[in-house]
Amino acid sequence: MMHSLMSTIDKIIGFKTAQAHCDIPCKIYDPATAQLAALSCVRLMDLIKEIEDKDSLSVADYTQIARLVSEKESAGTEVKDAIRIIWGDYFKTPQFEQVPHIHDLTHSIMLQASKCKQNIDRTEGEKLVELINIFADAFWLTKNIPTYRAICPYPPALDIVYPDLKN
Amino acid sequence: MMHSLMSTIDKIIGFKTAQAHCDIPCKIYDPATAQLAALSCVRLMDLIKEIEDKDSLSVADYTQIARLVSEKESAGTEVKDAIRIIWGDYFKTPQFEQVPHIHDLTHSIMLQASKCKQNIDRTEGEKLVELINIFADAFWLTKNIPTYRAICPYPPALDIVYPDLKN
Amino acid sequence: MMHSLMSTIDKIIGFKTAQAHCDIPCKIYDPATAQLAALSCVRLMDLIKEIEDKDSLSVADYTQIARLVSEKESAGTEVKDAIRIIWGDYFKTPQFEQVPHIHDLTHSIMLQASKCKQNIDRTEGEKLVELINIFADAFWLTKNIPTYRAICPYPPALDIVYPDLKN
Amino acid sequence: MMHSLMSTIDKIIGFKTAQAHCDIPCKIYDPATAQLAALSCVRLMDLIKEIEDKDSLSVADYTQIARLVSEKESAGTEVKDAIRIIWGDYFKTPQFEQVPHIHDLTHSIMLQASKCKQNIDRTEGEKLVELINIFADAFWLTKNIPTYRAICPYPPALDIVYPDLKN
Amino acid sequence: MMHSLMSTIDKIIGFKTAQAHCDIPCKIYDPATAQLAALSCVRLMDLIKEIEDKDSLSVADYTQIARLVSEKESAGTEVKDAIRIIWGDYFKTPQFEQVPHIHDLTHSIMLQASKCKQNIDRTEGEKLVELINIFADAFWLTKNIPTYRAICPYPPALDIVYPDLKN
Amino acid sequence: MMHSLMSTIDKIIGFKTAQAHCDIPCKIYDPATAQLAALSCVRLMDLIKEIEDKDSLSVADYTQIARLVSEKESAGTEVKDAIRIIWGDYFKTPQFEQVPHIHDLTHSIMLQASKCKQNIDRTEGEKLVELINIFADAFWLTKNIPTYRAICPYPPALDIVYPDLKN
Repeated sequence: MMHSLMSTIDKIIGFKTAQAHCDIPCKIYDPATAQLAALSCVRLMDLIKEIEDKDSLSVADYTQIARLVSEKESAGTEVKDAIRIIWGDYFKTPQFEQVPHIHDLTHSIMLQASKCKQNIDRTEGEKLVELINIFADAFWLTKNIPTYRAICPYPPALDIVYPDLKN
Repeated sequence: MMHSLMSTIDKIIGFKTAQAHCDIPCKIYDPATAQLAALSCVRLMDLIKEIEDKDSLSVADYTQIARLVSEKESAGTEVKDAIRIIWGDYFKTPQFEQVPHIHDLTHSIMLQASKCKQNIDRTEGEKLVELINIFADAFWLTKNIPTYRAICPYPPALDIVYPDLKN
Repeated sequence: MMHSLMSTIDKIIGFKTAQAHCDIPCKIYDPATAQLAALSCVRLMDLIKEIEDKDSLSVADYTQIARLVSEKESAGTEVKDAIRIIWGDYFKTPQFEQVPHIHDLTHSIMLQASKCKQNIDRTEGEKLVELINIFADAFWLTKNIPTYRAICPYPPALDIVYPDLKN
Repeated sequence: MMHSLMSTIDKIIGFKTAQAHCDIPCKIYDPATAQLAALSCVRLMDLIKEIEDKDSLSVADYTQIARLVSEKESAGTEVKDAIRIIWGDYFKTPQFEQVPHIHDLTHSIMLQASKCKQNIDRTEGEKLVELINIFADAFWLTKNIPTYRAICPYPPALDIVYPDLKN
Repeated sequence: MMHSLMSTIDKIIGFKTAQAHCDIPCKIYDPATAQLAALSCVRLMDLIKEIEDKDSLSVADYTQIARLVSEKESAGTEVKDAIRIIWGDYFKTPQFEQVPHIHDLTHSIMLQASKCKQNIDRTEGEKLVELINIFADAFWLTKNIPTYRAICPYPPALDIVYPDLKN
Repeated sequence: MMHSLMSTIDKIIGFKTAQAHCDIPCKIYDPATAQLAALSCVRLMDLIKEIEDKDSLSVADYTQIARLVSEKESAGTEVKDAIRIIWGDYFKTPQFEQVPHIHDLTHSIMLQASKCKQNIDRTEGEKLVELINIFADAFWLTKNIPTYRAICPYPPALDIVYPDLKN
């Protein structure tokens, strides 16, 4: 049934139009939002781990777990939304040529963000941060902005891709 | 820089794990949400058109335009979110084999939903409804549920893909 | 104090006007939204039950409980909002004549949705699904659309009222 | 089809249970929220009227209209939500006996709030404020708290029902 | 670096303009919203305490804790938002002269609301209610409205500052 | 009435505690969120200006104005929220000593963000960006992170304060 899917889509929306039209209200796209949210996931996992390391849990600890989980859920959703916006609104044919695997990368980020919502294992959070670093590198590549890596100036102090705007 | 992207992603998240793990909180996925939102886009375009057809506009008309636009924006965003959730949470390797062009289809829906936010031209809304019908067909295919088409029982009375659950 | 309430209301808003005016931005009302949310309640109760059946709970389990509860709360609220919209915006005098007990039914749904937020007992969720089935039947009756019942094509696989649009 | 609706509901949820159980997370119900939102509707209508009275409209005026409409929509929705919560969560059999027409009153508020979203006519807003005053009187009656009326200490300076807590 | 901060700000926004312009969409400010939210914090702490007093906790108790914490978080955030709006939108030079310490008071409320989000100790909630009473007194002072204190007519039955509008 | 306000606050919350306690869920504070939102305000003003420069406006233009205004409102609110969070959660006594005028600066940002919501004049947006640059400088000062200024790599291409993390 799906074998002629893309030709059907071609007919429906017309590719030339799709490439040329502008979906963007303000052209201000920045992966910083997704990066901050991914760092929050890791940080919240660390704070959950601190509670996990206690010998016994009080009701106050359970309330703290509920708070941390709720924030982690929000951070995971914010990652998904922020990446969906850049991928779905900014990336079009010219960018696909520069970053041919962007569909797979974006989908991997969705799966990894889900993992971070479901798990409290820090290594899952670190993978999410790294996938978004790759996405950030790809994004800045399409903008012809060089990048560098540095430790972010707050916990969890992970290596983050930044645009190099100084010169 | 991006040529080895997928092999890097492989290393970071490990594909076997990605395929096997379950991102789903409740497994209740249904394209009906996206379909309702897309129909709302078309309907709101029709209501804007009614105002456009007036000879002159009052302040009451401008307030009505603002209301209709705000709802159309919400409907367009709901389309994007609902499709992102099914694509990003439900679709994995087994489904990709059944619907190999799902990445392109999903991305096309994002672009078309943006068009519907930016435009008041009904044909753009109809295209969005049809793209989501294709998405719904693809989704129900992966669930082995047959589908049929019928006019939806409310305005804008367009042809919609429904799962055939009667028998 | 309240004995002349309705006559006071009559004077304030004027019933003729109230019956005739149109509160609806788009006339697209569909109980599917409420039905999906009620099914989610039951499904989330089932997932909580799976954790309850474990011999002992880890911190990871507590985080999962917090996630499931948060989603269940959202689903319960979505039920209330979706039903309030159809009842408060769509139902007017002509529909009241066809479904004279709609006020009581709507209020019962509110109470039952609250129960589902407060409890993790699946039978409360099943009652909510059934009340909304009754509401859906009433709604489609006022639209002259026949309905049928079928098992929904995802967990929790309960009997759901669908509009019969095929012919 | 609906003639035996209430007896069916009886069977499904069991009225004794429904009356006795507690749906309330915190028992802090106060119509003040709905009253403030209804006053905002009127105030925003007044501000829209100020623009309507201008000889000609600039783009700055159109942007102001869009802002005022958006706030008016929010205020109207807040009215509906706040009233739905008190009616759907707090009112049960004992309160129904004290305020037998509460269903009709609540439904009238929903319709009137819709009118205030669709119109810019101040008299519609005043009717909404007055219906909510009646609701507030009914609510405080069930709590055995006397009420008084006073002009609210901010625009639009309308007569508002307040609980008399001073003595 | 910061020693000439205020003179820089002066240059940027121009104080005369800042004092004279009107930031307010509707001039309806009322500390009642913040007061209700602060009372909810205390009430939710009491409900958490009821669970804490049980001998052992079931999964149903954990789900209830998660619900109560989520509501407490929302209430704490609502306090912060409601106070930020009155402080940031309503208070300007004339009000600063009447309430010179309003910056410190507002900041103290932010810190105390954070404490209430992090803790389940009722005394922290009571402090928040009292700080907001002070804020309410300050606000009504600037409006030349006298105030009185009364026990609020619902749990947690604390002393609340109300405007005296009766005469 | 307010002359002894601060001593009252002292008594209520106890300053030692206030200084020492930690309100922070994750310690990830970054003014980048507020800076992006302020840049969006300016950009949206520019897009509104493009419509203002047209000879005559169509209904499509009015719908575009409504969209741009709605986004500008959201951006203005996001500025206020992001700054309130850093000021209200992160800034405490040690930071006040480093940035003694932070209360005034924060309040100025609230007023200026209101101006940007009410106006479409680009110079108001530029002032907001600059106030937030000053805030960002103050924030990074308290973290001992040097800053530099660069043109942001997207419209509206304004000078922005960035943390210097490269070395």
